[in-house]
Amino acid sequence: MASRLFLISFISLILLHGCTARRNDLQQQQECNFDSMRALQPISTIEAEGGKTEFWNPDTQQFRCAGVAFLKHTIRRKSLLVPSYANSVLMVYVEEGKGFYSVVLPGCPETFQSPQEQSGERMRDRNQKIENFKKGDILIFQAGVTHWMYNNGDQDVKLVVMFDTTNRANQLDSIPQRFYVLGNPQGRQQGQQQQCPLLQQFQGESILKGFADEMLTAAFKMNKEMASKLKGQGVKEGHIITIEKELQVTRPEQQQQQQQDNGLEETSCSQNIRINIDKIDQADIFNPQAGHLTSLNSHHLPILNDVRLSAERGHLKMNAMMGPFWVLNAHSIMYPTDGEARIQIVNNQGRLVFDERLQKGQLVLIPQNFAVMIQAGNRGFQWVAFKTNDNAMITPIAGRASVYRGLPVSILSNILQISEQEASKLKYSNAETIMFAPQTSQGKTFTRAFQSLLEV
Amino acid sequence: MASRLFLISFISLILLHGCTARRNDLQQQQECNFDSMRALQPISTIEAEGGKTEFWNPDTQQFRCAGVAFLKHTIRRKSLLVPSYANSVLMVYVEEGKGFYSVVLPGCPETFQSPQEQSGERMRDRNQKIENFKKGDILIFQAGVTHWMYNNGDQDVKLVVMFDTTNRANQLDSIPQRFYVLGNPQGRQQGQQQQCPLLQQFQGESILKGFADEMLTAAFKMNKEMASKLKGQGVKEGHIITIEKELQVTRPEQQQQQQQDNGLEETSCSQNIRINIDKIDQADIFNPQAGHLTSLNSHHLPILNDVRLSAERGHLKMNAMMGPFWVLNAHSIMYPTDGEARIQIVNNQGRLVFDERLQKGQLVLIPQNFAVMIQAGNRGFQWVAFKTNDNAMITPIAGRASVYRGLPVSILSNILQISEQEASKLKYSNAETIMFAPQTSQGKTFTRAFQSLLEV
Amino acid sequence: MASRLFLISFISLILLHGCTARRNDLQQQQECNFDSMRALQPISTIEAEGGKTEFWNPDTQQFRCAGVAFLKHTIRRKSLLVPSYANSVLMVYVEEGKGFYSVVLPGCPETFQSPQEQSGERMRDRNQKIENFKKGDILIFQAGVTHWMYNNGDQDVKLVVMFDTTNRANQLDSIPQRFYVLGNPQGRQQGQQQQCPLLQQFQGESILKGFADEMLTAAFKMNKEMASKLKGQGVKEGHIITIEKELQVTRPEQQQQQQQDNGLEETSCSQNIRINIDKIDQADIFNPQAGHLTSLNSHHLPILNDVRLSAERGHLKMNAMMGPFWVLNAHSIMYPTDGEARIQIVNNQGRLVFDERLQKGQLVLIPQNFAVMIQAGNRGFQWVAFKTNDNAMITPIAGRASVYRGLPVSILSNILQISEQEASKLKYSNAETIMFAPQTSQGKTFTRAFQSLLEV
Repeated sequence: MASRLFLISFISLILLHGCTARRNDLQQQQECNFDSMRALQPISTIEAEGGKTEFWNPDTQQFRCAGVAFLKHTIRRKSLLVPSYANSVLMVYVEEGKGFYSVVLPGCPETFQSPQEQSGERMRDRNQKIENFKKGDILIFQAGVTHWMYNNGDQDVKLVVMFDTTNRANQLDSIPQRFYVLGNPQGRQQGQQQQCPLLQQFQGESILKGFADEMLTAAFKMNKEMASKLKGQGVKEGHIITIEKELQVTRPEQQQQQQQDNGLEETSCSQNIRINIDKIDQADIFNPQAGHLTSLNSHHLPILNDVRLSAERGHLKMNAMMGPFWVLNAHSIMYPTDGEARIQIVNNQGRLVFDERLQKGQLVLIPQNFAVMIQAGNRGFQWVAFKTNDNAMITPIAGRASVYRGLPVSILSNILQISEQEASKLKYSNAETIMFAPQTSQGKTFTRAFQSLLEV
Repeated sequence: MASRLFLISFISLILLHGCTARRNDLQQQQECNFDSMRALQPISTIEAEGGKTEFWNPDTQQFRCAGVAFLKHTIRRKSLLVPSYANSVLMVYVEEGKGFYSVVLPGCPETFQSPQEQSGERMRDRNQKIENFKKGDILIFQAGVTHWMYNNGDQDVKLVVMFDTTNRANQLDSIPQRFYVLGNPQGRQQGQQQQCPLLQQFQGESILKGFADEMLTAAFKMNKEMASKLKGQGVKEGHIITIEKELQVTRPEQQQQQQQDNGLEETSCSQNIRINIDKIDQADIFNPQAGHLTSLNSHHLPILNDVRLSAERGHLKMNAMMGPFWVLNAHSIMYPTDGEARIQIVNNQGRLVFDERLQKGQLVLIPQNFAVMIQAGNRGFQWVAFKTNDNAMITPIAGRASVYRGLPVSILSNILQISEQEASKLKYSNAETIMFAPQTSQGKTFTRAFQSLLEV
Repeated sequence: MASRLFLISFISLILLHGCTARRNDLQQQQECNFDSMRALQPISTIEAEGGKTEFWNPDTQQFRCAGVAFLKHTIRRKSLLVPSYANSVLMVYVEEGKGFYSVVLPGCPETFQSPQEQSGERMRDRNQKIENFKKGDILIFQAGVTHWMYNNGDQDVKLVVMFDTTNRANQLDSIPQRFYVLGNPQGRQQGQQQQCPLLQQFQGESILKGFADEMLTAAFKMNKEMASKLKGQGVKEGHIITIEKELQVTRPEQQQQQQQDNGLEETSCSQNIRINIDKIDQADIFNPQAGHLTSLNSHHLPILNDVRLSAERGHLKMNAMMGPFWVLNAHSIMYPTDGEARIQIVNNQGRLVFDERLQKGQLVLIPQNFAVMIQAGNRGFQWVAFKTNDNAMITPIAGRASVYRGLPVSILSNILQISEQEASKLKYSNAETIMFAPQTSQGKTFTRAFQSLLEV
């Protein structure tokens, strides 16, 4: 009997999964199996006064294997994502809204100075550089570097955030962890986050909470009351707080800001961490019938070289198609921002490991080297893809600049057992590059493709 | 009773090894024990029409610990290793034969153009750069990059291939995986490969096999019949196929090819991935009585810097000796190409962990920092060594340029409790560098060594 | 019954820890939990004729997670730490004493030549460069590179040594291993080291011990008697030996040595591996009331860039304080050299994970990103910290150049629910930088702090 009990408890240990998994379980499961992929949705939400954060399960096998984790912040109007840092590099995509943010770097000057106010009510203040962000921006926050973000627009700010825990900047833990430098970020613990130790760890509390009062009073040269505040007592609750009357900070006007950096040598204090990838005129691939694709890599934003990440913004027109292709040197995590698409992903066994319609709010991981095809639905398809290499490279399988174009006709004809003419047709029929217009009628397409053969 | 059964199944789980191991087992065994090394031979063969591939067990502890895997291709005359890519960097040594190959890089131009044929039978074709290879070449294929190889010589082509799965270019899996861009590479599954899931994964099938027909027809703008072909139906079977009448591809004559690159800046499209290490005039160590040694590192072939690998070609004369020595910063995987040798490897406990005669077709891993000696047999000994660092460095223990030469005589005499004269003899007796001629008679050697002392 | 036995043995397997843990256990425990930290002391000592080595347990979770291991050598007068190399980079801090050392690099010239002696008793000798070391020096020994150290001073030499096993120079094992090129380093096995297989592996024996006699005689061109010596028979026992009459080696006078390198291009043969961090005039932070802090990074010693390590030397005056702060990108392992201090470390949950008085001879690991405060005791506090990044960066939380200084007053006031005036006080009260003088009386400090506000 005892042994049967043991067996049962042993099996239940194995079946233990999801949000309740303990950290140790997580670390010991190192196998990486991309054999059955799913579109992933957030599993938990933490509400706060000024917004909410939705968490994808960091213990999902796909994410663990790729060394990434995801969450999505919603920051309401006049609300602030309070200052914090993480143990890993963060790549942030601004899905909606606008606002300003700051990164607080150790040893960098407090160059933003408030005007001397006449009333005498407010003291002269200085703080580190503050910059604007808006829809379509990608931002990079380095591991251990404090940052805050504020919504000064008229609608919600929505941010999709990737943690890259495999970056060597993270020596701490494969689970992403947030460190808050002040406040009471977990607040009254709204939402279901309490049942999930992993997310609790993920989220954090004020890092001053644990220190002895006498040490805090000495360090800040303040009284005990303030030490309590620093430890999170009697302060605003939650990790996103609302500022009643617009946040008052010193910052230059929006239009001048971008120019300021020109002519200055880039130091770690002035390093650019933000770029917009929504502009259609920066597209790398543009096909009026099919869509456009914008790559973001370290050539555009040098800090990507340090953090070894890149990104991509894609737009497919109604029923248009992208692929098949594979990414040589990176995992891609695709987040739809509009419309929907059917995605198929195939592994090296030729087996379909993913075949779903992907919609806004879902994530899908496309493993390195796996072949993928994307076919937009009736409303088209838009996405941002986060990539785990600073210079992620796509290899198209069909169309112009594809691997089939790079192969000699005689190899195609010999392997596929077709005539050289047929092989030539296969190689040259599709003259578009990676993004393909929807087919109107097969005959027509063939004719067009054959004409294009002469122009190659 | 139940508990006894449980114990038995528990033990059998532990004993489970070799070809039948599941992937998950593999990943969880992370201990790296180099305490008992063996010479390793291929455990499985996949036959194909145009040749065969022999696999070393990728689950061997030595290989797992070093992060490498090995296989050996035999490509028969007029046969083609069909286009594929791998999730890791490949280092290929051409053991025998000659032929041509191509790597198909995304975005690189199809610069090789076929002449306009008069007959009109063949269409004008373009493909990416094709280059020759021959016996003694080392080739580097980057992770995710498609390549094919063709034997246009009069004998079998034999290739020894190392997969480096620890390279950061591989984010996918610690098991090497092959991805085929077309064909039916597993064919009718000859050989014993079916019983070995690990090797099945290693080997792969057409990556187009899993896609929906309608998506393939749309992407290639071809009909359903061709989609079936692309998925591997009704095509040539096997990963090495025979081309009945010589493969017809566009390529310049052999003698002109090498010069073409001169004067052009090296881009990723024109980066050199091949070098010959069989030429005796490039030897770094040359001793007419003992043998010669040629190192290949990133100074000779810059791509080695990116992939963090290097290689070595060694020739020892009959009964000559190399070592003792250790490699500072790399594992060395030694593959004999001719003759035989007795190899001894010693760990930091002073314990002999390997003492075998090594012959062609076997592999032995020499762990980083372990001391090793090689003594050639009566037929001499030739080998190629694959090294897991782009600038692998050898430290000889005896002879010129050795660690004993670098130590003061008084340290040798004090530790070994010998006179300074004896210590000096120990330090200077052997005036050869790492490769030592066979001793004819001890007295004679001593005399010669002492004379050399004056010339130091 | 059987099942109960099984359960018990299963549990005992889980409980197995400390010195008796087998290597395989070690490797499989990959979870990294910094939830309860302890000050760590050496657990084992190996005595030798010329000194002793004390070992911290390499299987301690803190060390395993940070990828480091520690030991401390005591080398007595006229004693020699015999030539050896390790499978990982070593960072050595000279806590006490002085002497000379050499690294023996393969292929580097034996440039140090003994004068021709008239007596004819000693032979002309050459060896590789020998340099001096003294109290306060940091030395870097690369993985696989042989080095020895000799005490020629009047007191014991004490060395604290960190092994960085995560450096990519180590491909061998996560357990540090020492390789001895000659001698009988384990001697008669004094001390308790026998009971500890991990330390035995750590420590090593002569790497020539395992080779066949006939191979050694051939390689060194010496007789069988000498082969026995090389294998460790009839030689001085122990890894630190005493040289009866001062070690006789060829080396230039101390005062000239440092200048010799000037004007020469730095090659791997002449690369500087040593720097002193005890000089107060090189301090980066200096506060006459609080103490001083000297950082050592790759700007001072370029080899640190290769090995990805840095260090810090700190002095706090009686009752002075450092922090709160966190290190952005590195673990810090703190070794007190004098005095004592109370250290508090807080994790991202705001939980105190360490709160102890730290004294000389103990080590504490401060995990990356964790918040820490140090308050010196009545005798002040001095330490050296080893850091696992070549450019470890500290973020102060309080005082000048702190994260609170970088935040706008309105953010502090809104989160902490205090007036802007109070927030301004909080931000500017402490005008010192990271190291804070002991508070004499709170009122006084506040006054001083407020005056400093005007000078900001």
